[in-house]
Amino acid sequence: MDPSTREVETKEIDIKSVSSSQGHSQRYPQNEPYMHKVGIPPKQNLFKEFKTTVKETFLADDPLRHFKNQTRSRKFILGIQAIFPILEWGKDYNFTKFRGDLIAGLTIASLCIPQDIGYAKLANLDPQYGLYSSFVPPLVYAFMGSSRDIAIGPVAVVSLLLGTLLQNEIDYKTNMAEYRRLAFTATFFAGITQAALGIFRLGFLIDFLSHAAVVGFMAGAAITITLQQLKGFLGISNFTKKSDIVSVMNSVVKSAHHGWNWQTIVIGASFLGFLLFAKYIGKKNKKFFWVPAIAPLISVVLSTFFVYITRADKEGVQIVKHIEKGINPSSVNQIYFRGDYLLKGVKIGVVAGMVALTEAAAIGRTFASMKDYQLDGNKEMVALGAMNIVGSMTSCYVATGSFSRSAVNYMAGCQTAVSNIVMSCVVFLTLEFITPLFKYTPNAILAAIIISAVLGLIDIEAACLIWKIDKFDFVACMGAFFGVVFVTVEIGLLIAVSISFAKILLQVTRPRTALLGKVPRTTVYRNIQQYPNAAKVPGVLIVRVDSAIYFSNSNYIRERILRWLTDEEEQNKTVNEQKVQYLIVEMSPVTDIDTSGIHALEDLHKSLEKRGVQLVLANPGPVVIDKLHASHFANIIGEDKIFLTVADAVSSCSPKPVEEV
Amino acid sequence: MDPSTREVETKEIDIKSVSSSQGHSQRYPQNEPYMHKVGIPPKQNLFKEFKTTVKETFLADDPLRHFKNQTRSRKFILGIQAIFPILEWGKDYNFTKFRGDLIAGLTIASLCIPQDIGYAKLANLDPQYGLYSSFVPPLVYAFMGSSRDIAIGPVAVVSLLLGTLLQNEIDYKTNMAEYRRLAFTATFFAGITQAALGIFRLGFLIDFLSHAAVVGFMAGAAITITLQQLKGFLGISNFTKKSDIVSVMNSVVKSAHHGWNWQTIVIGASFLGFLLFAKYIGKKNKKFFWVPAIAPLISVVLSTFFVYITRADKEGVQIVKHIEKGINPSSVNQIYFRGDYLLKGVKIGVVAGMVALTEAAAIGRTFASMKDYQLDGNKEMVALGAMNIVGSMTSCYVATGSFSRSAVNYMAGCQTAVSNIVMSCVVFLTLEFITPLFKYTPNAILAAIIISAVLGLIDIEAACLIWKIDKFDFVACMGAFFGVVFVTVEIGLLIAVSISFAKILLQVTRPRTALLGKVPRTTVYRNIQQYPNAAKVPGVLIVRVDSAIYFSNSNYIRERILRWLTDEEEQNKTVNEQKVQYLIVEMSPVTDIDTSGIHALEDLHKSLEKRGVQLVLANPGPVVIDKLHASHFANIIGEDKIFLTVADAVSSCSPKPVEEV
Repeated sequence: MDPSTREVETKEIDIKSVSSSQGHSQRYPQNEPYMHKVGIPPKQNLFKEFKTTVKETFLADDPLRHFKNQTRSRKFILGIQAIFPILEWGKDYNFTKFRGDLIAGLTIASLCIPQDIGYAKLANLDPQYGLYSSFVPPLVYAFMGSSRDIAIGPVAVVSLLLGTLLQNEIDYKTNMAEYRRLAFTATFFAGITQAALGIFRLGFLIDFLSHAAVVGFMAGAAITITLQQLKGFLGISNFTKKSDIVSVMNSVVKSAHHGWNWQTIVIGASFLGFLLFAKYIGKKNKKFFWVPAIAPLISVVLSTFFVYITRADKEGVQIVKHIEKGINPSSVNQIYFRGDYLLKGVKIGVVAGMVALTEAAAIGRTFASMKDYQLDGNKEMVALGAMNIVGSMTSCYVATGSFSRSAVNYMAGCQTAVSNIVMSCVVFLTLEFITPLFKYTPNAILAAIIISAVLGLIDIEAACLIWKIDKFDFVACMGAFFGVVFVTVEIGLLIAVSISFAKILLQVTRPRTALLGKVPRTTVYRNIQQYPNAAKVPGVLIVRVDSAIYFSNSNYIRERILRWLTDEEEQNKTVNEQKVQYLIVEMSPVTDIDTSGIHALEDLHKSLEKRGVQLVLANPGPVVIDKLHASHFANIIGEDKIFLTVADAVSSCSPKPVEEV
Repeated sequence: MDPSTREVETKEIDIKSVSSSQGHSQRYPQNEPYMHKVGIPPKQNLFKEFKTTVKETFLADDPLRHFKNQTRSRKFILGIQAIFPILEWGKDYNFTKFRGDLIAGLTIASLCIPQDIGYAKLANLDPQYGLYSSFVPPLVYAFMGSSRDIAIGPVAVVSLLLGTLLQNEIDYKTNMAEYRRLAFTATFFAGITQAALGIFRLGFLIDFLSHAAVVGFMAGAAITITLQQLKGFLGISNFTKKSDIVSVMNSVVKSAHHGWNWQTIVIGASFLGFLLFAKYIGKKNKKFFWVPAIAPLISVVLSTFFVYITRADKEGVQIVKHIEKGINPSSVNQIYFRGDYLLKGVKIGVVAGMVALTEAAAIGRTFASMKDYQLDGNKEMVALGAMNIVGSMTSCYVATGSFSRSAVNYMAGCQTAVSNIVMSCVVFLTLEFITPLFKYTPNAILAAIIISAVLGLIDIEAACLIWKIDKFDFVACMGAFFGVVFVTVEIGLLIAVSISFAKILLQVTRPRTALLGKVPRTTVYRNIQQYPNAAKVPGVLIVRVDSAIYFSNSNYIRERILRWLTDEEEQNKTVNEQKVQYLIVEMSPVTDIDTSGIHALEDLHKSLEKRGVQLVLANPGPVVIDKLHASHFANIIGEDKIFLTVADAVSSCSPKPVEEV
């Protein structure tokens, strides 16, 4: 090709490559003014820089944006509204909205009442505490929360987790009073934790529990819960306190020959069948969503009536027996504020609070994006925290958003958090008047309801998807799952978190790097493993680094590059090819570099000099260029050794770039 | 422009943009075969994938490369050589090399002997233990280590750290024997830690102590050590045990009116002046490097002689008094292998071992790159570990590579680790014959020697550079520094490590993102903050994400992008500009994406749909493309919505891309 075109091209490339996006510059062959625009970007004011960093970290969602240039009084009103969003959306609340909320509220109420009674058992608490937790917290949330679709109340996983953790400290069988007090204490500090995370804008911390880990954890919890239900389902009297599959199966088998009760099994099995069938219908046809929603209540009513007339409880069918009548008693004076139970309560509360938060946040996020309204994660946390703090003082245990009920709530056409108010009104009436009717409700039904509910937590599709997308995620997922199923819920959680962290560390310690080759008939340089037909340029080794260069990976990157050089040279020896004279490092993906990174580059440069190999950089981003200059490394290797595209670099390296290979 | 050209161009872009490097494709307008090669890269075999990941993580440096296709016997020999590199380089060792090593060895010996005596005091041990530690460990290292320039022995920082940590457990004044035993125990486990890290290929763990943190820590330690020397330097009798600047200054001031001893100060000051002057000469003219190297020994000899004739010790000039004669006694049976001191020993050993490792690794790396020979970090760790394990059994405390002595060793023209052997021979002779002569050596001299040595650890230039390059690094640096100076060495270390980790978390939680605009007269799209003349395209919002999208940042990225859209729309309202119809996400820097990332994209897509904005992706990398397909997200937004350059995307979005603004 004739030099003139080459000339022009190079210039074009200059402009093209300085941004990480490419363009059709060939449309404008005459654009000298913009040449070498990469240069050093305008220096930022230090304080400003710092401020933006802090802002992005803690106030990423800029919570005070609405307060900007407002009058004092207006600010105050806005402040109140920020704490109690109901004042904001309450203004334009109308009847149509209310109709939606009413229907939704009634639906989730019918779903939550039987679930609550069952979940309370998971937490080793008396049934009414489940109902209590569906009365106060939803009210509080309705005033403070900003999600329109979330359905508040006790949930299976948190109930199980809380139950396990509390049981580790106090045995509920022998010492119910203290157990309950510790439960309230834990709930209180769960609320404190959630509120604190929100207030200090640390919401992003829950992101460290990766989606994959959550999927695994939930599935594991579902299995564990189902196993726990075998007690009520098979009517086993003496059941293990452990939650892992091995010991549960043991006590099931042990009790096989005497402990089981066929009437219980018949009732349980038949109604479980009914519930699953209802679920199936709901799945089949979205407009029958209400079938699975009310099925639990129906089966409770039917089974209770059935047991009442047949007096099957005399046949050994375990029944709920007694639910305390009346609304939440105060439990303020029951929370431990001193003594060694305080610390235990805090520990349990923090864990339970975080898990509850993860679930609620996921739900809020999902529905917010489905109806497209912004949700301030941190504000949500404050709301959830407040709700649990108030709850802990009114005999509730940790409540949060329930996946299943929120979905029903959404499908039933809820418009605002009013649906939660409706629900809690229904719960209130239940507590006040109809709890006695639950006397003859067989535990088997509750077991069946819980099983059919938690089965929804096992998301095999998601697991498959994770497997397909990211193997490492899958490991985290399985780790969490088996941890929960075979050991305990805490262990599973621990595994999940630590694997997630391990992944982060791995990611920043061992970034991808690739050898680039020239794709025939173009001047594009690509990963030769990805594109086998890409050909190496004799005498030139091109390496791309696929990550920011930080202290945690700088040495690795340095060594990796050097090793590639060594390998290359050894190969060349064997096939006595041209010796490597230039090493081009393609830096497009290197978004940032720190002091250690600069040092690594300097060391690399030194070693290469010793070997008579010239280091060449291609297309470093603005931030990197800036730091290369700040550290004078640019001068060390020479400005003219920093090119704007690999193609440029190559053509400068080898006097005449080889065409076809 | 007429469609045909457009057509051709697009195709070109296809090829260009799939790799992160751009090229002069316009040279070849007819290359259909390579069109859309981006597609899905060839599926990798799962096991292979896994293997490579593991390999890159733990065997990044491929330690077994030499063993490939070798005979059994050859493998064995190679194995032995791998453990004892001396067998490898020993073969072609010759006289010229020896001459270099001899001179270097003698020089560092003359430097290390007085330093050792002083450093032993830092560790609260009797002087001879410093010498012991310069006798056995260097020998062991010479056989097992692969660095040619490192000078092994006790070093200031580790001695101080060890002294502080041990003193926390046992008071050396009241209980010297146990203190010493714990010191040996710690040394033993320091060795175990180092060896274990090497054997299990966990060497990269020390990279988590960032360069910046080390700079700060070293400087802080230097200050602390200097302060400690005031005791010997001013001849203060009752001195604080604390190491922080406040309490030291207190006891200095308190003792001012009576405790000081002017003779001591005179001797100390004059010789410190001499030492610093020698240092200055050495710096001024590299070929006088030996002046600062032998200055310490000279001053010891002179001062000792001076004190001897003037009997200044009678005037209250503190002297070394007595150094045990003879070589290292065995200390095998003194190491605690049970009891509660075992655990304490392990704790201290792990910390001291890691710090020692960091220093040695840095030194090895530096000189390796200066002389360009590869250094297997993990093998080095095994060598250092073995050396400390043996040391702990022969009355040595933690030894490692010394910055100052290694530099001297290098400048004195050392060729191999033989210089260490020479040094330890000299130390051997010293121990055997001339230790009694040190009797009258004034402590002030040792103080002066230590001060002049550690002052070199304060690297203000480096700190300035860090400040210039990376503000966050500077914070880590200062944190470590002040932590050491004002609290204790451990706290400083703790601060350093935690800030380093915080940085990693921050990096993966809050990645950079940028709004792109069109640079006039080109089709290049760049950060509009960087390039103010870049113009937004009406109706199109272009965002670049500057990091891999993982669970730890996926939600942030999603929200950030949405917020940008909101801001944009608000702006447009005010200036009633064209409504945003397309949101282009430039993904060139996105090197990877995980399940959470995919979900974030899906949520983003949902919310955008609700707002009537079309999501468009530009130039996703191979890995990302792969996962986008695996997760069917590519189908969800539509293959035709994934473009290979921003320019492409824009031109497809807006029927006719606006020219000049």
